[in-house]
Order: sequence, then structure tokens, then C-alpha cells
Amino acid sequence: MIEYKVEFPVRYYETDQMGVVHHSNYIRYFECARSAFMKDIGFSIEKCESLGIVTPVTKVECRYLYSAKMGDVLTAYAIVDAVPLAKQIIKHRVFNQDGKLCAEGSVTVGFLDKKLGKIVPCPEEFRNLIESRLNTADK
Amino acid sequence: MIEYKVEFPVRYYETDQMGVVHHSNYIRYFECARSAFMKDIGFSIEKCESLGIVTPVTKVECRYLYSAKMGDVLTAYAIVDAVPLAKQIIKHRVFNQDGKLCAEGSVTVGFLDKKLGKIVPCPEEFRNLIESRLNTADK
Amino acid sequence: MIEYKVEFPVRYYETDQMGVVHHSNYIRYFECARSAFMKDIGFSIEKCESLGIVTPVTKVECRYLYSAKMGDVLTAYAIVDAVPLAKQIIKHRVFNQDGKLCAEGSVTVGFLDKKLGKIVPCPEEFRNLIESRLNTADK
Amino acid sequence: MIEYKVEFPVRYYETDQMGVVHHSNYIRYFECARSAFMKDIGFSIEKCESLGIVTPVTKVECRYLYSAKMGDVLTAYAIVDAVPLAKQIIKHRVFNQDGKLCAEGSVTVGFLDKKLGKIVPCPEEFRNLIESRLNTADK
Repeated sequence: MIEYKVEFPVRYYETDQMGVVHHSNYIRYFECARSAFMKDIGFSIEKCESLGIVTPVTKVECRYLYSAKMGDVLTAYAIVDAVPLAKQIIKHRVFNQDGKLCAEGSVTVGFLDKKLGKIVPCPEEFRNLIESRLNTADK
Repeated sequence: MIEYKVEFPVRYYETDQMGVVHHSNYIRYFECARSAFMKDIGFSIEKCESLGIVTPVTKVECRYLYSAKMGDVLTAYAIVDAVPLAKQIIKHRVFNQDGKLCAEGSVTVGFLDKKLGKIVPCPEEFRNLIESRLNTADK
Repeated sequence: MIEYKVEFPVRYYETDQMGVVHHSNYIRYFECARSAFMKDIGFSIEKCESLGIVTPVTKVECRYLYSAKMGDVLTAYAIVDAVPLAKQIIKHRVFNQDGKLCAEGSVTVGFLDKKLGKIVPCPEEFRNLIESRLNTADK
Repeated sequence: MIEYKVEFPVRYYETDQMGVVHHSNYIRYFECARSAFMKDIGFSIEKCESLGIVTPVTKVECRYLYSAKMGDVLTAYAIVDAVPLAKQIIKHRVFNQDGKLCAEGSVTVGFLDKKLGKIVPCPEEFRNLIESRLNTADK
């Protein structure tokens, strides 16, 4: 299992008039973790797109457990436990600085050849990079 | 069953570099439909909050079926088929101007007494308004 | 002088913990008015981009006069009083439902040939459409 | 003169279909730098608000010079060169990882007593903290 995390402060514009981070932003935090994970593994979104493959999200689930607030420093995790074939499922968790779990969920991503306009399998290079990282992580 | 809908054009800033509406925005479109439904029924979010009750989202699910694009005029539905007790589950659908289903999902909302800082049941007035609308809709 | 307006309700996620619309959103409202104006005149952003010309913003100014709130229905104006040459300057105003001026400012837009990667003059078709609309408006 | 900076990667959802960061986001980056500056100086926005003072933005100016892109790591500066009296003017600059100036501008912030609903001078504690930092910076 690969656990990759990024840390960032809550931004003021992300709060709403309830005085907490608006729920839609956690979906964006999930993406921050996912992008950073892809970059770290050597297959950034930009690289993927430069190969003509975009990665549309096909499903999102999120449960909200504890409200993040202005002043909080959040840690967002991307958790990957399998080599993607047709689709990639990434689990996500967002904690605040006290270790409180604010939100958790999962995102399913497909792979689309932009020129052909059709769904394709996960690019082999990306699959190999994840497989190799999974092997390292398991040791 | 109550089906309430709102219509609005895609906004340029909602697109991303894939050339389509970023997936996080559909969660926001869901909220647009929900807010407009609450206002229409006579129990707007502002009114609810002025009574000291905020309505935090506790769960979101969304499946993405067809990408909305700049130039599209979307219709977002809030679909309510039961009187809320502890929580309210609202189903949502977003269609483009050609009737294509772009996204569908559901949002679960709780009710929180802001002063007490604790979860409360759905305010009676809101429950009654939904019940009465459900009765009208079913005729 | 052309005055084009669009109307829309404040969206909950646009509010911040001050309890009002976050200041960055007015820049987005300006864009909503601008996009709708371009569409109305027969030269939508999508059309412009399909000709290979993108319209990057080069300058923004905004003064904030009265806070918009959840529940408000806003009217955003795009005001054009000259035929664009190298750049287009659009004035903007956002009013609430009581006619209170919430924000006003201006946006300067350039024209960029995406393939060549260089600044170009305003496309002739767009210039002609604005000129003809200005002539009608002045009568 | 105080120069305070924060660093963060571009987030995917901040890009638009032109393939670059949407212009409205720089206004948000400005705020990120401003918030972090206030926190660093010992007078965070949360602290300010807990004293009953909110800090509405009254004016924003931004010039766009070079487009930030996905994959970029940006540095946003808040530059303060005077002790605020009625209002605070903060200059901002956003650079990419190659030192290219992407955007620069200024933000004017007022101080509003939320209970009284009226404009007040800059809180004395905040003024003193800035003054003392300015003195340190000038040495």
C-alpha cells in the first residue's frame, strides 16, 4: 500500500458562512494529494496529458467527519493499494493538525485518449511506476 | 417525490485544462439546486441559519457520465422523496441543454444547533413544508 | 455604450466566514457578464477559441462598496464603450436586488493566437460585431 | 519594508480551458500570502476575528504578466511598507519557480467591528506588531 501525503494551510476563501471549510473543497484537497502523488512517482498529470491521455474523474465519494477551520494546517493523503487497469481507485483522507480525521473518501479516475476521444487502459509507464512503488512500500 | 430544478450557464472559471467543467463543481451545482429548493419551499438556508441551525453536509456521492463544457446551459435537479428526520438525503442530477445526463449523485445533510454545538433533528417547520410539498407533488 | 447584464443568485460556497461573498468572486461575476455579452453579440468565448484565439486577462481592478450575501440575487453588468483594437477594456458593475452597487471595476483582455503563441489584434469579426452593436445602442 | 512569502504548487482545479491558472486565482494567492503574513506576525485572521474585527477587502488591483501553469510551484509575496491607520494596503507579487513574475498588484483592507457594523481603525495590537516588524526589517 502506498500512502502519499501533502500538507497545506486552510485558505480563507475556502471557508463559508458556517465558519468552516466548504464541503466541496475536500474534493479539491483529494485532488491535491493525487496530483502530488503522481508527480512524486514520476508521472505527473502534465506528463500524462503531454502523452495525450487525460484522466477524467468518474466517481467521487466523501464522508465528512470533522470540520476544518481557518488556521488549520491540513494533511491530505492519497492511498493506492493496487495497480490500475481500466480505472484507478484512490482512497483519500484529510486530517487536521491535531490528527482529527476531517474527511475520507475515494476517487475513481479513468484514462481518456484525447485525440481518439475514447477510454483507454492505464498507460503502461504509469502502471509500472505504481507497481514498483507498491513493491517497495510492501517491504 | 419533489423534483426542483435550476438552470444556469457553465462559467468559464469552472472549466479546467482538460477543456471541461472540473469535477468538483458538480458538487457545487448540487448545492445550487438544494439552496434554490429550500428557498422555493419557504425555508431558505439563510432562514434556517437565522434560527441557529446550520446544515453541514455529512456525505457526498457523485458519478460523472458526460462532461459539461463552456457554452453549455445546465439544469441541476434536487430530488426529495422523504420527510427528513435526523438527516436529509437529497438526490441530484445535472443535465446539459441536450438532455444528456452529465452527473448524478446524492448529498446527505445534517442539522446542527450552532449555539449548542450539537446535532439536532430536522427543524419541524422545514419537515412540515417538505411533507406538504410531497403531498401536493404526489397528487 | 453597450450595457449587457446577467442575473444570478449568490451561491452558498461563494460566501466566506465573514458571512458575505468572498471578494475574489466578484472578479468571477465580472467574467460571467463578459462571457454572456460575448455570446449575445454572436462571438462567444468558445467561438473565439475555436478560431485559435484565447483572451487572457491582463489587468483587473475592483472596488468593493457593499457586501453581497447569501439570499441575494445579483445583477452583473458588462459595459463596453469602444471598439477594441489591441486590447479590450470592459467596465463591470455588480448590483444586488435592492439596486445597491456591491462592486465595480474593469477588466482588460488581450488576444493571443494560441498556435503562434503571440499577441494579436482583436479579431475583425468581433470588432465589427461590437461596432455594429455600439451604433445601435447609440441611436 | 516587510516581505513575507509563501510557496505552493498550482492546483489542477485552478487551471482553466486556456491551459493556465485562471486569473481570479491570483487574487486568492494574494490572500494566501496576506493570511500567512498575519499569522507569522502574531495576529492571524482568526485572532483578529475573535476580537470582533473582520477585515473586508475594499479594493483589488492585479496586473497579469506571465501565465502560471499546472506543475508550477509558485511563490506569493505580501509586501508591507507602512503601519496601517484606517486601512491597510498590501502589495503582492506572484513568481513561478523560474523567478518569472506572473502577477503583481495590491489589496486594500479595511477593519470592521462586526457587532457595531462600522468601520474602525486598524487594531492597535496589529499596528504595533507591524511597526515592530518594520523596524526590524529596516535594520
